[in-house]
Amino acid sequence: MDVLEQVKFDDQGLIPAIAQDYKTGEILMFAWMNKESLKLTIEKQQAVYYSRSRKKLWFKGEESSHTQVIKEIYSDCDRDVILLKIEQIGGIACHTGRASCFFHKIENDNWSITTDIIKDPKDIYG
Amino acid sequence: MDVLEQVKFDDQGLIPAIAQDYKTGEILMFAWMNKESLKLTIEKQQAVYYSRSRKKLWFKGEESSHTQVIKEIYSDCDRDVILLKIEQIGGIACHTGRASCFFHKIENDNWSITTDIIKDPKDIYG
Repeated sequence: MDVLEQVKFDDQGLIPAIAQDYKTGEILMFAWMNKESLKLTIEKQQAVYYSRSRKKLWFKGEESSHTQVIKEIYSDCDRDVILLKIEQIGGIACHTGRASCFFHKIENDNWSITTDIIKDPKDIYG
Repeated sequence: MDVLEQVKFDDQGLIPAIAQDYKTGEILMFAWMNKESLKLTIEKQQAVYYSRSRKKLWFKGEESSHTQVIKEIYSDCDRDVILLKIEQIGGIACHTGRASCFFHKIENDNWSITTDIIKDPKDIYG
Protein backbone atom coordinates (compact mmCIF):
# COMPACT_ATOMS: atom_id res chain seq x y z
CA MET A 1 0.00 0.00 0.00
CA ASP A 2 1.78 3.12 -1.26
CA VAL A 3 0.23 5.53 1.25
CA LEU A 4 1.89 3.56 4.06
CA GLU A 5 5.34 3.96 2.53
CA GLN A 6 5.00 7.74 2.39
CA VAL A 7 4.39 8.09 6.11
CA LYS A 8 7.22 8.41 8.62
CA PHE A 9 7.13 6.15 11.65
CA ASP A 10 9.46 6.98 14.56
CA ASP A 11 12.35 4.82 15.73
CA GLN A 12 9.87 2.63 17.60
CA GLY A 13 7.81 2.18 14.43
CA LEU A 14 5.03 4.44 15.68
CA ILE A 15 3.21 7.56 14.51
CA PRO A 16 0.96 9.83 16.61
CA ALA A 17 -2.72 9.83 15.62
CA ILE A 18 -5.37 12.41 16.49
CA ALA A 19 -9.07 11.51 16.26
CA GLN A 20 -11.37 14.44 15.52
CA ASP A 21 -15.15 14.47 15.20
CA TYR A 22 -15.77 14.90 11.46
CA LYS A 23 -18.80 17.12 12.03
CA THR A 24 -18.08 19.27 15.09
CA GLY A 25 -14.27 19.41 14.86
CA GLU A 26 -13.99 18.38 18.52
CA ILE A 27 -10.74 16.56 19.28
CA LEU A 28 -11.75 13.27 20.83
CA MET A 29 -8.61 11.24 21.38
CA PHE A 30 -4.88 10.97 20.89
CA ALA A 31 -3.22 7.60 20.40
CA TRP A 32 -0.43 5.86 18.48
CA MET A 33 -0.36 3.70 15.38
CA ASN A 34 2.16 1.32 13.91
CA LYS A 35 2.22 0.47 10.21
CA GLU A 36 -0.09 -2.50 10.66
CA SER A 37 -2.69 -0.48 12.57
CA LEU A 38 -2.70 2.28 9.94
CA LYS A 39 -3.06 -0.36 7.20
CA LEU A 40 -6.00 -1.94 9.03
CA THR A 41 -7.56 1.48 9.70
CA ILE A 42 -7.52 2.21 5.97
CA GLU A 43 -8.79 -1.25 5.00
CA LYS A 44 -11.58 -1.46 7.57
CA GLN A 45 -12.40 2.27 7.56
CA GLN A 46 -12.43 1.94 11.33
CA ALA A 47 -9.81 3.22 13.76
CA VAL A 48 -7.19 0.69 14.81
CA TYR A 49 -4.43 1.95 17.09
CA TYR A 50 -1.35 0.41 18.67
CA SER A 51 -1.40 0.17 22.46
CA ARG A 52 2.06 0.98 23.80
CA SER A 53 1.17 -0.31 27.27
CA ARG A 54 -0.32 -3.59 26.06
CA LYS A 55 2.15 -3.83 23.16
CA LYS A 56 -0.48 -4.94 20.67
CA LEU A 57 -3.01 -3.72 18.15
CA TRP A 58 -5.94 -1.91 19.70
CA PHE A 59 -9.15 -2.28 17.74
CA LYS A 60 -10.91 0.80 19.12
CA GLY A 61 -14.34 -0.20 20.39
CA GLU A 62 -13.69 -3.95 20.54
CA GLU A 63 -14.73 -4.03 24.20
CA SER A 64 -16.81 -0.86 24.50
CA SER A 65 -18.47 -1.07 21.04
CA HIS A 66 -17.50 2.60 20.75
CA THR A 67 -15.90 2.17 17.36
CA GLN A 68 -14.68 5.07 15.23
CA VAL A 69 -15.83 5.13 11.63
CA ILE A 70 -13.31 6.80 9.32
CA LYS A 71 -14.53 9.68 7.21
CA GLU A 72 -11.18 11.15 6.14
CA ILE A 73 -7.50 10.49 6.84
CA TYR A 74 -4.94 13.32 6.81
CA SER A 75 -1.25 13.62 7.53
CA ASP A 76 0.79 16.72 8.21
CA CYS A 77 3.51 18.56 6.28
CA ASP A 78 6.24 16.21 7.53
CA ARG A 79 4.00 13.15 7.18
CA ASP A 80 4.84 12.06 10.68
CA VAL A 81 1.42 12.65 12.29
CA ILE A 82 -1.98 11.17 11.34
CA LEU A 83 -5.32 12.95 11.70
CA LEU A 84 -8.48 10.84 11.53
CA LYS A 85 -11.77 12.57 10.92
CA ILE A 86 -14.24 10.14 12.40
CA GLU A 87 -17.77 9.41 13.45
CA GLN A 88 -17.66 8.31 17.09
CA ILE A 89 -20.16 5.49 17.52
CA GLY A 90 -21.96 5.78 20.87
CA GLY A 91 -20.73 9.37 21.29
CA ILE A 92 -18.08 8.27 23.80
CA ALA A 93 -14.40 8.26 22.84
CA CYS A 94 -12.84 8.30 26.32
CA HIS A 95 -12.35 5.29 28.60
CA THR A 96 -13.67 7.48 31.46
CA GLY A 97 -17.07 7.46 29.75
CA ARG A 98 -16.80 10.99 28.38
CA ALA A 99 -17.32 12.20 24.81
CA SER A 100 -13.72 13.40 24.53
CA CYS A 101 -10.49 12.60 26.36
CA PHE A 102 -9.64 16.32 26.54
CA PHE A 103 -11.61 17.33 29.60
CA HIS A 104 -8.90 18.81 31.83
CA LYS A 105 -8.55 22.56 31.38
CA ILE A 106 -6.27 25.07 33.05
CA GLU A 107 -8.37 27.50 35.07
CA ASN A 108 -6.92 29.67 37.86
CA ASP A 109 -3.62 27.77 37.82
CA ASN A 110 -5.33 24.41 38.25
CA TRP A 111 -6.64 21.63 36.05
CA SER A 112 -10.44 21.71 36.16
CA ILE A 113 -12.69 18.99 34.84
CA THR A 114 -14.88 20.49 32.12
CA THR A 115 -17.25 17.70 31.07
CA ASP A 116 -19.46 15.11 32.70
CA ILE A 117 -19.32 11.35 32.36
CA ILE A 118 -21.97 10.17 29.89
CA LYS A 119 -21.82 6.53 30.90
CA ASP A 120 -20.14 4.84 33.85
CA PRO A 121 -17.07 2.93 32.64
CA LYS A 122 -18.26 -0.07 34.70
CA ASP A 123 -21.29 -0.21 32.41
CA ILE A 124 -19.13 0.17 29.31
CA TYR A 125 -16.42 -2.37 30.07
CA GLY A 126 -18.06 -4.39 32.86
CA MET B 1 3.65 25.79 39.11
CA ASP B 2 1.27 23.03 40.20
CA VAL B 3 -0.29 22.44 36.78
CA LEU B 4 3.14 21.42 35.47
CA GLU B 5 3.54 18.76 38.13
CA GLN B 6 0.26 17.12 37.21
CA VAL B 7 1.25 16.52 33.61
CA LYS B 8 3.14 13.42 32.48
CA PHE B 9 6.21 13.94 30.33
CA ASP B 10 7.64 10.90 28.52
CA ASP B 11 11.04 9.36 29.21
CA GLN B 12 12.62 12.07 27.07
CA GLY B 13 10.88 14.76 29.12
CA LEU B 14 8.45 15.57 26.32
CA ILE B 15 4.69 15.74 25.85
CA PRO B 16 2.78 15.91 22.54
CA ALA B 17 0.92 19.16 21.89
CA ILE B 18 -1.89 19.79 19.41
CA ALA B 19 -2.71 23.34 18.30
CA GLN B 20 -6.33 23.89 17.31
CA ASP B 21 -7.97 27.07 16.02
CA TYR B 22 -10.12 28.25 18.95
CA LYS B 23 -12.91 29.45 16.65
CA THR B 24 -13.13 27.01 13.75
CA GLY B 25 -11.82 23.88 15.49
CA GLU B 26 -9.38 23.29 12.64
CA ILE B 27 -6.28 21.38 13.74
CA LEU B 28 -3.33 23.54 12.77
CA MET B 29 -0.20 21.87 14.06
CA PHE B 30 1.29 19.07 16.10
CA ALA B 31 4.52 19.57 18.03
CA TRP B 32 6.26 18.65 21.28
CA MET B 33 6.80 20.46 24.56
CA ASN B 34 9.14 19.97 27.47
CA LYS B 35 8.33 21.25 30.95
CA GLU B 36 10.04 24.59 30.32
CA SER B 37 8.15 25.21 27.08
CA LEU B 38 4.80 24.41 28.72
CA LYS B 39 5.69 26.74 31.61
CA LEU B 40 6.57 29.54 29.19
CA THR B 41 3.42 28.89 27.13
CA ILE B 42 1.31 29.37 30.25
CA GLU B 43 3.25 32.44 31.41
CA LYS B 44 3.38 34.22 28.06
CA GLN B 45 -0.02 32.96 26.83
CA GLN B 46 1.78 32.25 23.57
CA ALA B 47 2.78 28.84 22.22
CA VAL B 48 6.33 27.76 22.98
CA TYR B 49 7.33 24.28 21.81
CA TYR B 50 10.46 22.17 22.05
CA SER B 51 12.19 21.42 18.77
CA ARG B 52 13.44 17.84 18.82
CA SER B 53 15.59 18.39 15.71
CA ARG B 54 17.20 21.61 16.96
CA LYS B 55 17.18 20.40 20.58
CA LYS B 56 16.02 23.74 21.96
CA LEU B 57 12.97 25.79 22.83
CA TRP B 58 10.98 26.89 19.81
CA PHE B 59 9.20 30.19 20.30
CA LYS B 60 6.54 29.70 17.64
CA GLY B 61 6.54 32.72 15.34
CA GLU B 62 9.93 34.10 16.39
CA GLU B 63 11.08 34.10 12.76
CA SER B 64 7.78 34.11 10.89
CA SER B 65 5.88 36.42 13.27
CA HIS B 66 3.12 33.78 13.06
CA THR B 67 2.71 33.52 16.79
CA GLN B 68 -0.06 31.52 18.47
CA VAL B 69 -2.05 33.32 21.14
CA ILE B 70 -3.36 30.95 23.80
CA LYS B 71 -7.10 30.97 24.45
CA GLU B 72 -7.41 27.71 26.42
CA ILE B 73 -5.12 24.86 27.47
CA TYR B 74 -6.45 21.31 27.87
CA SER B 75 -4.93 17.96 28.68
CA ASP B 76 -6.39 14.51 28.18
CA CYS B 77 -7.62 11.80 30.56
CA ASP B 78 -4.09 10.46 31.14
CA ARG B 79 -2.62 13.97 31.26
CA ASP B 80 0.04 13.00 28.79
CA VAL B 81 -1.12 15.10 25.84
CA ILE B 82 -1.64 18.89 25.63
CA LEU B 83 -4.27 20.63 23.50
CA LEU B 84 -3.87 24.34 22.87
CA LYS B 85 -6.84 26.32 21.63
CA ILE B 86 -5.21 29.23 19.89
CA GLU B 87 -5.58 32.25 17.70
CA GLN B 88 -3.15 31.86 14.83
CA ILE B 89 -1.64 35.27 14.10
CA GLY B 90 -1.22 35.77 10.35
CA GLY B 91 -3.49 32.82 9.62
CA ILE B 92 -0.52 30.59 8.76
CA ALA B 93 0.57 27.80 11.12
CA CYS B 94 2.59 25.67 8.70
CA HIS B 95 6.18 26.27 7.61
CA THR B 96 5.03 25.53 4.03
CA GLY B 97 3.00 28.76 4.13
CA ARG B 98 -0.36 27.02 4.60
CA ALA B 99 -3.02 27.71 7.23
CA SER B 100 -2.70 24.19 8.68
CA CYS B 101 -0.01 21.50 8.59
CA PHE B 102 -2.66 18.85 7.89
CA PHE B 103 -3.01 19.19 4.14
CA HIS B 104 -2.23 15.66 2.93
CA LYS B 105 -5.36 13.56 2.57
CA ILE B 106 -5.83 9.98 1.43
CA GLU B 107 -7.82 9.94 -1.81
CA ASN B 108 -7.88 6.97 -4.18
CA ASP B 109 -5.04 5.26 -2.33
CA ASN B 110 -2.78 8.29 -2.61
CA TRP B 111 -1.91 11.32 -0.52
CA SER B 112 -3.45 14.37 -2.21
CA ILE B 113 -2.63 17.97 -1.31
CA THR B 114 -5.85 19.64 -0.20
CA THR B 115 -4.93 23.28 0.44
CA ASP B 116 -3.00 26.03 -1.29
CA ILE B 117 -0.01 27.95 -0.03
CA ILE B 118 -1.11 31.33 1.33
CA LYS B 119 2.37 32.86 1.38
CA ASP B 120 5.63 31.63 -0.11
CA PRO B 121 7.92 30.40 2.69
CA LYS B 122 10.74 32.44 1.10
CA ASP B 123 8.72 35.55 1.91
CA ILE B 124 7.99 34.32 5.44
CA TYR B 125 11.47 33.23 6.49
CA GLY B 126 13.64 34.95 3.86
